Amino acid sequence: MDLNSDLGEGYGAWRMGDDASMLGVVTSANVACGFHAGDPAGILDTLRAAAAQGVAVGAHVSYPDRVGFGRRNLDPTSRELVSDVIYQIGALQGLAAAAGTRVTYVKPHGALYNTIAGEPRQAADVITAILTVDPTLVLMGLAGTPILDWARERGLQVAAEAFADRAYTPEGLLVSRREPGAVLTDPVQVADRMLDLVRTGRITAIDGSRIRLHADSICVHGDSPGAVVMAQTLRARFDAAGVVLKAFAPSAGA
Amino acid sequence: MDLNSDLGEGYGAWRMGDDASMLGVVTSANVACGFHAGDPAGILDTLRAAAAQGVAVGAHVSYPDRVGFGRRNLDPTSRELVSDVIYQIGALQGLAAAAGTRVTYVKPHGALYNTIAGEPRQAADVITAILTVDPTLVLMGLAGTPILDWARERGLQVAAEAFADRAYTPEGLLVSRREPGAVLTDPVQVADRMLDLVRTGRITAIDGSRIRLHADSICVHGDSPGAVVMAQTLRARFDAAGVVLKAFAPSAGA
Amino acid sequence: MDLNSDLGEGYGAWRMGDDASMLGVVTSANVACGFHAGDPAGILDTLRAAAAQGVAVGAHVSYPDRVGFGRRNLDPTSRELVSDVIYQIGALQGLAAAAGTRVTYVKPHGALYNTIAGEPRQAADVITAILTVDPTLVLMGLAGTPILDWARERGLQVAAEAFADRAYTPEGLLVSRREPGAVLTDPVQVADRMLDLVRTGRITAIDGSRIRLHADSICVHGDSPGAVVMAQTLRARFDAAGVVLKAFAPSAGA
Amino acid sequence: MDLNSDLGEGYGAWRMGDDASMLGVVTSANVACGFHAGDPAGILDTLRAAAAQGVAVGAHVSYPDRVGFGRRNLDPTSRELVSDVIYQIGALQGLAAAAGTRVTYVKPHGALYNTIAGEPRQAADVITAILTVDPTLVLMGLAGTPILDWARERGLQVAAEAFADRAYTPEGLLVSRREPGAVLTDPVQVADRMLDLVRTGRITAIDGSRIRLHADSICVHGDSPGAVVMAQTLRARFDAAGVVLKAFAPSAGA
Repeated sequence: MDLNSDLGEGYGAWRMGDDASMLGVVTSANVACGFHAGDPAGILDTLRAAAAQGVAVGAHVSYPDRVGFGRRNLDPTSRELVSDVIYQIGALQGLAAAAGTRVTYVKPHGALYNTIAGEPRQAADVITAILTVDPTLVLMGLAGTPILDWARERGLQVAAEAFADRAYTPEGLLVSRREPGAVLTDPVQVADRMLDLVRTGRITAIDGSRIRLHADSICVHGDSPGAVVMAQTLRARFDAAGVVLKAFAPSAGA
Repeated sequence: MDLNSDLGEGYGAWRMGDDASMLGVVTSANVACGFHAGDPAGILDTLRAAAAQGVAVGAHVSYPDRVGFGRRNLDPTSRELVSDVIYQIGALQGLAAAAGTRVTYVKPHGALYNTIAGEPRQAADVITAILTVDPTLVLMGLAGTPILDWARERGLQVAAEAFADRAYTPEGLLVSRREPGAVLTDPVQVADRMLDLVRTGRITAIDGSRIRLHADSICVHGDSPGAVVMAQTLRARFDAAGVVLKAFAPSAGA
Repeated sequence: MDLNSDLGEGYGAWRMGDDASMLGVVTSANVACGFHAGDPAGILDTLRAAAAQGVAVGAHVSYPDRVGFGRRNLDPTSRELVSDVIYQIGALQGLAAAAGTRVTYVKPHGALYNTIAGEPRQAADVITAILTVDPTLVLMGLAGTPILDWARERGLQVAAEAFADRAYTPEGLLVSRREPGAVLTDPVQVADRMLDLVRTGRITAIDGSRIRLHADSICVHGDSPGAVVMAQTLRARFDAAGVVLKAFAPSAGA
Repeated sequence: MDLNSDLGEGYGAWRMGDDASMLGVVTSANVACGFHAGDPAGILDTLRAAAAQGVAVGAHVSYPDRVGFGRRNLDPTSRELVSDVIYQIGALQGLAAAAGTRVTYVKPHGALYNTIAGEPRQAADVITAILTVDPTLVLMGLAGTPILDWARERGLQVAAEAFADRAYTPEGLLVSRREPGAVLTDPVQVADRMLDLVRTGRITAIDGSRIRLHADSICVHGDSPGAVVMAQTLRARFDAAGVVLKAFAPSAGA
């Protein structure tokens, strides 16, 4: 199992999350590419730290919306979306080379992530962009959604992602953040849920039902106050249970 | 001799210059990377056209100053400048790969170009950035200025650039745009000057003196109304004189 | 009847449209506020020219999307949209004062314009923003759409806008630009249609039917090649027919 | 004596400083206007909190350099700088009106603040901008520098600013942050220094000499970890000593 987190999300003088601590826990780092967060100097710092820790690096590509942190829906044309994704991957590849590592996967961010989970046109644009730059890049997408099939059909490798701190519907999708109980905050509960998922391939939905969920990677968010503790608790629980954590798409040398 | 021009300098709905016409004339295209001009979709269009015409591609890297078109001095730290240049080269490499071509040289833009011609700290930062991403990239700099030596000393290949439409001081530098007679507008005069430069290795300065100037590439600006005509006139004059124009750093397959 | 056009839509070194010529024809100028187009220096130039010509000034507020020219849908929260609109109106008011004129109306731009024509939440946010800054500002909206009623119900004055160069559906709405025949390019035809509208209160829809349309202002677009000629033709036709053109919300002193 | 701090310096999802706590201590708030920091929604929140606390509001105008937080030198033309400052003041005035307060002074930020302290051309541009928008706005500048005289000569009211947490040279200027001892961190020492300044009109320079310094306002920085404690300590010390703190340019109703 892989453990991932969103990192490199500062911007200039602004900080977000505790990248250094998180890089001691996760096996894959989704690194911002400058469109929702991340300035080149800050991104390079994060990449160097990821390289030093042997953490795999993914391009956390976004709609161009810094003030909205990439969380607002936007309707780019295919021409725009394809080239925006290529630009971001290329920029991160350049910085990754400078940091002595390389980009091995792509995880769309925020509103783009949610949109392509089920919207075929924008999903196809993201897939096209990845195939164009480097067809060996793995696409990380929401477990249980069509994007994973669409990408596989076009020859991409995919990684299905589960969210450690989120409740699931009986259909296997994320409960909306607007609903009560959508976000889990107890580190021990979260760790137990994820260990259960790894062992059984099932997760307990918000209504108590048990649902199947195939996941290749577990996301621990990096921008909430207790994020590092949650990630550390989860990691310790997995280590104690003998579950090996490793990147699904390790960077060179890792 | 190489003929270069600044291209891909639109932004979203805004156009600048006539890239399609200019790409039929020049042998090297300095393509904007998004920091002073160029959005990913427009950059990709320009790269595809360059690839189709067999024109070599350089990264036209800039300070981050879109509203000032990269023409205003800025004093970034080394940490900022190095990573800004890497980011831009990487982004353009990604888009170039998508267009079926590749980046073979780097030409800093505007205020950054002028600053590094003689300011050792920022010059060193740009050189470091290039060496970090790809040490085979050629650095294009102002003919007769220290940047060319500094880059060579650190192992980079360089290309010395002359400006077709600019007057020169007796010291071999550009006459400031604020001085009368600094900018030349007569296409035939410009073509004759450049042919003279190619044949004799000398150029007539603004005071009438003859000065030595070693140039590997001649720049024809792309954003003035008569730019395409000037470039075409120059090319026709060179062709008639049997001077072969070709890129100093051809892209793959060109 | 009022004649309006979108102006001040350059950005830094980039130009768009021929503001000087258009300001000799129209009675109201929708001036960009920096979110989809317009840098402060360019906006100030346009405002000074508008003041010199006695043309009324409106705030052409937009979603924050410069690279998309404000033409892409975005889903800001109410908190974001209200404050974005206030910020833009305030900035334009400051520059208008510097130019010796003042802002008398607000015309949302692009995707925001289209969205609020019929979407009550974002419409309410724009209305709230205007009421907060200055309740005497007039809101310009698409003729025949709910936004005009919603604004009136909350105490705003409104101006209904017709588009000179666009075909209408039998329901009185604009034919989508994706449909054939949606955009009209013959200046004489356009002038005749608008004169007919002014005289009869009706317009001929794309299916030949005659529909009622109440308009307080006619928009002539400023960014197409023939825009100035179309505006001049329309103005000459109106002058010849004795139709007086004047701003619905004149600036101070105009 | 007035106590001021830089506030509203978040951007979108990014936070900086503890505005709520600081607004309980200071008498004047320098509020970011969007060019170095501050998005409209966050600015509006800060303005509402300032209005609720009766804290005076100043426009904290900056060069357009968000990624550099306005701390990097830039060389705008007069045309650019004048209109950039007007735009920012206008935008903040709009938001201030929405928050039930108004802008009463202008404090340039970062590199612009330092540059205009002694550079006459950019200083003149900032003064021109303020005179154009509202000649009753007070300009806050570095105590002991020429900008204060230049502004007074052109009819502006000025406020001289001392920095609570900075060491001074024997000439009465700030010791560069690059020098050892430039930044003071002991809240009690800082409070004593400032009380001494208020009582004697003198401050102890870094070499131990006593120098005259006329100050109308004392700045306590808002973005360092101990900023709030330092401000509270200073305020408590002043209160205990019977020194009344009040804004030099109170907002309406305050």
